[in-house]
Amino acid sequence: MGQVAWKGLFLSLFDYKTEKYVIAKNKKVGILYRVVQLSILAYLVGWVFIVKKGYQDTDTSLQSSVITKLKGVAFTNTSELGERLWDVADYVIPPQGENVFFVMTNLIVTPNQRQATCPESSSIPDALCYQDQDCPAGEAVVAGNGVRTGRCVKDRDSIRGTCEILAWCPVEKRSKPKKPLLANAENFTVYIKNSVRFPKFKFSKVNVLPTDNKSYLKSCRYSTEHPYCPIFVLGNIVRWAGSDFQEMALEGGVIGIQIEWNCDLDKAPSECNPHYSFSRLDNKFVEKTISSGYNFRFAKYYQDAEGVDYRTLIKAYGIRFDVMVNGKAGKFNIIPTIINVGSGLALMGAGAFFCDLVLLYLIKKSNFYRGKKYEEVKSSSRKSLSSPTLNGNQSPDQLGGL
Amino acid sequence: MGQVAWKGLFLSLFDYKTEKYVIAKNKKVGILYRVVQLSILAYLVGWVFIVKKGYQDTDTSLQSSVITKLKGVAFTNTSELGERLWDVADYVIPPQGENVFFVMTNLIVTPNQRQATCPESSSIPDALCYQDQDCPAGEAVVAGNGVRTGRCVKDRDSIRGTCEILAWCPVEKRSKPKKPLLANAENFTVYIKNSVRFPKFKFSKVNVLPTDNKSYLKSCRYSTEHPYCPIFVLGNIVRWAGSDFQEMALEGGVIGIQIEWNCDLDKAPSECNPHYSFSRLDNKFVEKTISSGYNFRFAKYYQDAEGVDYRTLIKAYGIRFDVMVNGKAGKFNIIPTIINVGSGLALMGAGAFFCDLVLLYLIKKSNFYRGKKYEEVKSSSRKSLSSPTLNGNQSPDQLGGL
Amino acid sequence: MGQVAWKGLFLSLFDYKTEKYVIAKNKKVGILYRVVQLSILAYLVGWVFIVKKGYQDTDTSLQSSVITKLKGVAFTNTSELGERLWDVADYVIPPQGENVFFVMTNLIVTPNQRQATCPESSSIPDALCYQDQDCPAGEAVVAGNGVRTGRCVKDRDSIRGTCEILAWCPVEKRSKPKKPLLANAENFTVYIKNSVRFPKFKFSKVNVLPTDNKSYLKSCRYSTEHPYCPIFVLGNIVRWAGSDFQEMALEGGVIGIQIEWNCDLDKAPSECNPHYSFSRLDNKFVEKTISSGYNFRFAKYYQDAEGVDYRTLIKAYGIRFDVMVNGKAGKFNIIPTIINVGSGLALMGAGAFFCDLVLLYLIKKSNFYRGKKYEEVKSSSRKSLSSPTLNGNQSPDQLGGL
Repeated sequence: MGQVAWKGLFLSLFDYKTEKYVIAKNKKVGILYRVVQLSILAYLVGWVFIVKKGYQDTDTSLQSSVITKLKGVAFTNTSELGERLWDVADYVIPPQGENVFFVMTNLIVTPNQRQATCPESSSIPDALCYQDQDCPAGEAVVAGNGVRTGRCVKDRDSIRGTCEILAWCPVEKRSKPKKPLLANAENFTVYIKNSVRFPKFKFSKVNVLPTDNKSYLKSCRYSTEHPYCPIFVLGNIVRWAGSDFQEMALEGGVIGIQIEWNCDLDKAPSECNPHYSFSRLDNKFVEKTISSGYNFRFAKYYQDAEGVDYRTLIKAYGIRFDVMVNGKAGKFNIIPTIINVGSGLALMGAGAFFCDLVLLYLIKKSNFYRGKKYEEVKSSSRKSLSSPTLNGNQSPDQLGGL
Repeated sequence: MGQVAWKGLFLSLFDYKTEKYVIAKNKKVGILYRVVQLSILAYLVGWVFIVKKGYQDTDTSLQSSVITKLKGVAFTNTSELGERLWDVADYVIPPQGENVFFVMTNLIVTPNQRQATCPESSSIPDALCYQDQDCPAGEAVVAGNGVRTGRCVKDRDSIRGTCEILAWCPVEKRSKPKKPLLANAENFTVYIKNSVRFPKFKFSKVNVLPTDNKSYLKSCRYSTEHPYCPIFVLGNIVRWAGSDFQEMALEGGVIGIQIEWNCDLDKAPSECNPHYSFSRLDNKFVEKTISSGYNFRFAKYYQDAEGVDYRTLIKAYGIRFDVMVNGKAGKFNIIPTIINVGSGLALMGAGAFFCDLVLLYLIKKSNFYRGKKYEEVKSSSRKSLSSPTLNGNQSPDQLGGL
Repeated sequence: MGQVAWKGLFLSLFDYKTEKYVIAKNKKVGILYRVVQLSILAYLVGWVFIVKKGYQDTDTSLQSSVITKLKGVAFTNTSELGERLWDVADYVIPPQGENVFFVMTNLIVTPNQRQATCPESSSIPDALCYQDQDCPAGEAVVAGNGVRTGRCVKDRDSIRGTCEILAWCPVEKRSKPKKPLLANAENFTVYIKNSVRFPKFKFSKVNVLPTDNKSYLKSCRYSTEHPYCPIFVLGNIVRWAGSDFQEMALEGGVIGIQIEWNCDLDKAPSECNPHYSFSRLDNKFVEKTISSGYNFRFAKYYQDAEGVDYRTLIKAYGIRFDVMVNGKAGKFNIIPTIINVGSGLALMGAGAFFCDLVLLYLIKKSNFYRGKKYEEVKSSSRKSLSSPTLNGNQSPDQLGGL
């Protein structure tokens, strides 16, 4: 190619090529297309931009730290334990104040257990026996507390007994509690301190609002009137989760405390506030099946003067609180904005495609418009003088337009 | 502008404008384009809609609560501890029954440790000494148990000894166990209760299926035949994770129990079921390096009659189980459906672009088609009578079509 | 329809239809369009493909297991506790070595507490009294340690006293510590073993690199020179998080250790390495309000020879470390590649739309180009011999081009 040709090529690079359009003076399809355009525009502006804030870059990988601290004491007076006061170190397990904590509301205490032999609890089906042969020595009782010694222990005059076992003796008595021991726990309070950080935007916030009024933070209680007070009454939490505290305290359960941060960082940082919600996490639905509620066993170990181990076994019923934090932050960013506008416009193309289908195949004069839209060219044909755009005799093309 | 002009403008708003197409009667490119269209359609229908369920709105931020409960007892008879029975309160740490629990399978017990001075263990390199000067008083032994007092303690006739330290004495003996003490733990069972909730769809489910048959839930064991039974035998879990229980029990390890909920809420709720999988999380790969397996030390603290503290140090080996729940739920929603159809159609545009490249630059008669596709107009040119669409002498345009 | 017509219809399916373009020899708009095209191309290649690796399928749902192990001893000599050595079993809570661990650096010990009556601490406002009537029996002291007995206990000569309470007696003295007891904790080390697994790609990795040099792993310390050593000095962690260890040890706090895995699986597995970062999670901002720092109370329970419970209450201050693992892995996949290319091309369409606006409405000769781009057709009009593409008298159409 000569120099002139190269120059021409180069210049033609800066010619602007634009699609040629056919104006179909058909009001029905025209109105249809405008309606489609407006719907897409409304979707784009209303949903993508206003509701979903599509012009923002978002960060959902927040770093969160939760510190919890309970306050409250309860006094009990039972025949088994006598007068006893329960404080935080007694009823919170584990004591560390992490995002999951358990408040003991009821308990079955089996004191002074020692490694020895004793009859298995009669409430365990597998331990029932009529004679020593029913208790093969060395075999563990299924769902029981120990290993059989080979003896069948009967009350006198009784023909049925339970196998003697080697275990922590005496074994726990299976007595379902009638009312929660620490019913008072309803009035305990928990202070929840939650710091979040959105690493992408280097933005941190705490759920404890800065205030000059120290006594406010000592005396306030979270409620709809005090949505930013970080101190919660346990009874309220359970009620807001849709359960009854006394009922839950008896059998135990799990409550979720959701803290949600939904921050629009295009606004002032003070507008970024936590939103709390409460729900019961252990489905009550299965309460009729095994292991309803929430309980677990733990032991306190002691040694007597001879150095022999003994323990106090505690079956603790109570409420586990799971503090779950999630959130997202958004900030204006040009890239998601462009992408959302671009994909909105691409949707317009889909709308045009749909209207084309109507114009070319569904209306009366579609044959005429098809002829106008599609200009047939054949490389092998002699050049005809009449413009091909005027030629109406199209090939049948019902499916070809897709 | 006059009123007529405004009316014309308004009416012209409802003219439908549609792109003008050139029909190139070239079968090769035509077939290529149909193949591209069909591929995109197949991708859209097969992958986006059927496999990825692109017509659904999804919720992956599930709220989950896990309650675990172990059952089982083990009997051991060692020279150190004598006859001893281990129950849940003894071997599960922590006892709360959360989603992470540790089952002790082996242990080194160092009873009756008191704050005193004693020689450091000889297995610690930093504590070896030949004379008192090797033991600078007040300096902690690196990776050791205490602070040097300044004396070097030697067995008689020995020229090498270990530094005397102030520590909990006597120090732990570094004897690697030969076989797991609680080998029986293989038969222990764990009941895993997992409630999930998809907040976006207000849908809750538990992994314990509702059943009238209570005894089924008490006696069933999870297996491929019983995929919805929530009771697992520890030995099976370890085997399914690809490890050997007895080997793991000796040195410890971490097993992950994944519960996956993949719910199509367009179907019946009963079709939304958990899927369990098991994997070993501590890579065995590094077992040859330091700190292989999984173990930790804890102590039980006692006071004697004089109120002096002493403790029993326990180095516990065992298996930590991490229950991890994840899932997603999907439900038909018009917005993702439209977006996916729209972006599929946009892809068709990309396909057309590709075929244009072939038509205009790669086939023999591309020069002819280029002339037909691009209609050159110049604002400064006199209006010629011959239609520009017929004029074939295009400017060279190899690159310009992009 | 005859057989010939069907054949024609079938053949016409393989005609290729391509949009007809008008070449506007306008350099300004042409250059503008090229600039837009290049910007989109640069964005697509530079941002989407190179920075964001848009050609990869990603997996962000990693499975992670963290094992932590502390080493170090501290010696203290106080009037209250005497000479005492603290080892791992004493200062790490909980002992299991999970991803969250607490190192006790300071403590207030209240030994030998028993269930009894004693005067409430005078630092609690609610317990102050002048006479017995100020202490209604059976009522708990707000934010206090017990339940009032009804007596007001005064020092002699004093007119003001505190209510007598039933509680664990004696109650804790509220003395703020002046310097951390376990200041030495700065030199403790923690070994963090983190195994991750990307289930989608079946790829596992550990943060402990395979090495033949065992002693390296025993003696190395993480630093910028040793970025893959998994042993960290606590003092360094706190310093890197931007805090002072001694200050934090006094009041407590929470430190986050982020481990980030950002793996490009198209490269060699050895290029997939963890990246550590450290940050303080409890915002110091609220330090002036209630409950600054991090502390909690726990108790060790004992029984005396008569079987009466007593306990040692410990208020522990210290640093909680939260190891958080997140990561993503990417691997080449054809589907995201196609989607990203397709949506890039769709953006080009948006660019063309923008340039069309300029061409048709903003430049001088826009009227001329409008006439060229839009070809008016009317189904009802008599076929005129002059080609409509040549007809320049458009209807006014300022808004219609959208």
